[in-house]
Amino acid sequence: MTVNLKEPELLSPIKGIRLAAGASGIKKNGATDIVVIEIAEGANCAAVFTQNRFRAAPVLISENHLAKTTPRLLLINSGNANAGTGDDGYNNAVQTCKLAALASGCNDTEVLPFSTGVIGETLPVDCFAKSLPEIISTLDEDNWLLAARGIMTTDTIAKASSRTITLDGTTVTVTGIAKGSGMIKPNMATMLAYIATDASIKSDLLDEALKESVESSFNSITVDGDTSTNDSCVLLATGQSDISEINSNNEDYQLFCKTLQDIMQELAQAIVRDAEGVTKFVEIKVINAKSYADAKIVAYTVAHSPLVKTALFASDPNWGRILAAVGRAEISQLDVDLLSIYLGDVCIVHNGGRAESYTEADGQRVMSEEEIIITIDMKAGSEQATVWTSDLSYDYVKINAEYRT
Amino acid sequence: MTVNLKEPELLSPIKGIRLAAGASGIKKNGATDIVVIEIAEGANCAAVFTQNRFRAAPVLISENHLAKTTPRLLLINSGNANAGTGDDGYNNAVQTCKLAALASGCNDTEVLPFSTGVIGETLPVDCFAKSLPEIISTLDEDNWLLAARGIMTTDTIAKASSRTITLDGTTVTVTGIAKGSGMIKPNMATMLAYIATDASIKSDLLDEALKESVESSFNSITVDGDTSTNDSCVLLATGQSDISEINSNNEDYQLFCKTLQDIMQELAQAIVRDAEGVTKFVEIKVINAKSYADAKIVAYTVAHSPLVKTALFASDPNWGRILAAVGRAEISQLDVDLLSIYLGDVCIVHNGGRAESYTEADGQRVMSEEEIIITIDMKAGSEQATVWTSDLSYDYVKINAEYRT
Repeated sequence: MTVNLKEPELLSPIKGIRLAAGASGIKKNGATDIVVIEIAEGANCAAVFTQNRFRAAPVLISENHLAKTTPRLLLINSGNANAGTGDDGYNNAVQTCKLAALASGCNDTEVLPFSTGVIGETLPVDCFAKSLPEIISTLDEDNWLLAARGIMTTDTIAKASSRTITLDGTTVTVTGIAKGSGMIKPNMATMLAYIATDASIKSDLLDEALKESVESSFNSITVDGDTSTNDSCVLLATGQSDISEINSNNEDYQLFCKTLQDIMQELAQAIVRDAEGVTKFVEIKVINAKSYADAKIVAYTVAHSPLVKTALFASDPNWGRILAAVGRAEISQLDVDLLSIYLGDVCIVHNGGRAESYTEADGQRVMSEEEIIITIDMKAGSEQATVWTSDLSYDYVKINAEYRT
Repeated sequence: MTVNLKEPELLSPIKGIRLAAGASGIKKNGATDIVVIEIAEGANCAAVFTQNRFRAAPVLISENHLAKTTPRLLLINSGNANAGTGDDGYNNAVQTCKLAALASGCNDTEVLPFSTGVIGETLPVDCFAKSLPEIISTLDEDNWLLAARGIMTTDTIAKASSRTITLDGTTVTVTGIAKGSGMIKPNMATMLAYIATDASIKSDLLDEALKESVESSFNSITVDGDTSTNDSCVLLATGQSDISEINSNNEDYQLFCKTLQDIMQELAQAIVRDAEGVTKFVEIKVINAKSYADAKIVAYTVAHSPLVKTALFASDPNWGRILAAVGRAEISQLDVDLLSIYLGDVCIVHNGGRAESYTEADGQRVMSEEEIIITIDMKAGSEQATVWTSDLSYDYVKINAEYRT
């Protein structure tokens, strides 16, 4: 199941971006598993990658190619992560870039490869060889939804979003897609996300916009606390709208950043709404913390607690588990006597102990909802952080116990 | 189920220790829920408590009483943790000490209270008032097993161990009991453990012995990564054997420490063998690390990964998940190209990539066992650490989703 997540509505094309997808046989069930995103000349590109020390071959190559030139083609496969595959995996990824370059007429280094799926299995290069020419022949600016579907693995629903804003008197569009459902505690970006705009934005500002939005979106979600070896998030600005280049931190830039953040938060939350085995969508908000870092550590500690997650699954207002999780968070100082905790609008803990006004019926009411907000007031300062997470259900265990079978 | 865990065999009494247990009505199902351990005059006592910032009322009081005098009575209840209960909880715990002191003829401050069970519910003091006199009238040195059963909550089997050694030409006995099954990532001690010996040991050496043994036993296990608010571990030396006092770090002391460590590791491992929903008993051994701290962080990161734990449940040699978990461990330096990982005797990762000799059949063979050893060779130094953990099964979710219903 998913929590309040629908198939994406109409997605606006981005001038300068064409997409294609096809089934190459990497996925055993014949589903779409190769996606190609073609970028017109003159675009700018920003990207962030996983902080896991084990970085998959395609991540290493993408970083390497990005350092050399601006990409013209993103080559994404699902069903195989090409991670933990050593030198052979690296060579295979290089090989797929060559095949894509050949089929599309660009240079090898202008191709960025991305892979997602099972770790540790050999990437079948022949699947690429066989199907890339045909896939590339179907490139079209209206294929965003097809691409969103093509990058899915354990996802049950495609994740995509489009918005338009007016900058400089002209309509500008931002469209993004993402995938992810498990091994989600992005430390940089989610498994895979691609966002494009037709705005023209200076390269360093584009970098800055991406980094800021990633922090409050993909870097603020968790399903299971496991950071993937393949996390990547790419932001493209084709510059093909009629606006002049955004080259300073002005009003237009700020409006663009706001829109980007909205889309990225929507995509990040969509990953949690489609988390493996999800039955609850949970927002954990830590307020009045001494620092943003403290707030985030506390939020993640609660979000990762298997006992909190199973209580959420059971709709059980077992607030003692939230309190115990806060108490073990690795922050330098915590005055438990000041702490208050709320389930939705219900105060459950006041000054470190059970709130006098709290009744089990009130707690039960909030916990029975599909969407739950847990607010932790630390009364230690003025910083805050929000993390989104899912619960831990039978289906989470089932999906992950059966993943490779 | 449990993994290779049997009901404890004959437990040797400890001269100077008498125990009693009874059902007072705290547990709704009528099971034993109050345990009293009486300590003869002249004993020494060492204790360690949870590092969770939220410390239950009994933990605060036990520390306070210990600072004042040597205890004569341990008063333990199961079924209610008396944690997150504020001032009322504190006063209730003080009240139970008074009742126990009155019934046994010692001072209030000579009673150490301990509680384990649901967090956030009021401790029913009347249950103590009603039943303590009768329970205390049944104190007997042969009641160790009864006590081990009386402190259980979600445990399915009692945990206890006895050993005798010869010190100074005389037989000395060490007997211990423990409880715990969920909310287990002790950061000091497990939920509750009590170990006693009739040896005579100087107080500061007893402290030292306990701290060292705790690090390699209760502080080296995890079920779910959640540290309890009530963890406590108490070590008593009654001095009633005929040996002279151990007052220096001599051979006798080292033999005693070795025995203590053996018993505490056995009890700690018993907790994992009886972990909530357990189907696998897993040893994670990190070798050749730069520091002990690094080794332990890597071991715990793998042990806490829900993806590794569900793969273990599924007997799936999905070593990519182990590799991804190692890669996200929060240590300052990690050279992934040097890393090797073994499942039992099978090398699965060599120099950071899939080992050439590895076959899925070999991995499958090891993963199908009930007891699995994962060895991670970091080739970064000469330190090592071992952590024991369980898998993540449907029953783990079931037990924790239904805990309060």
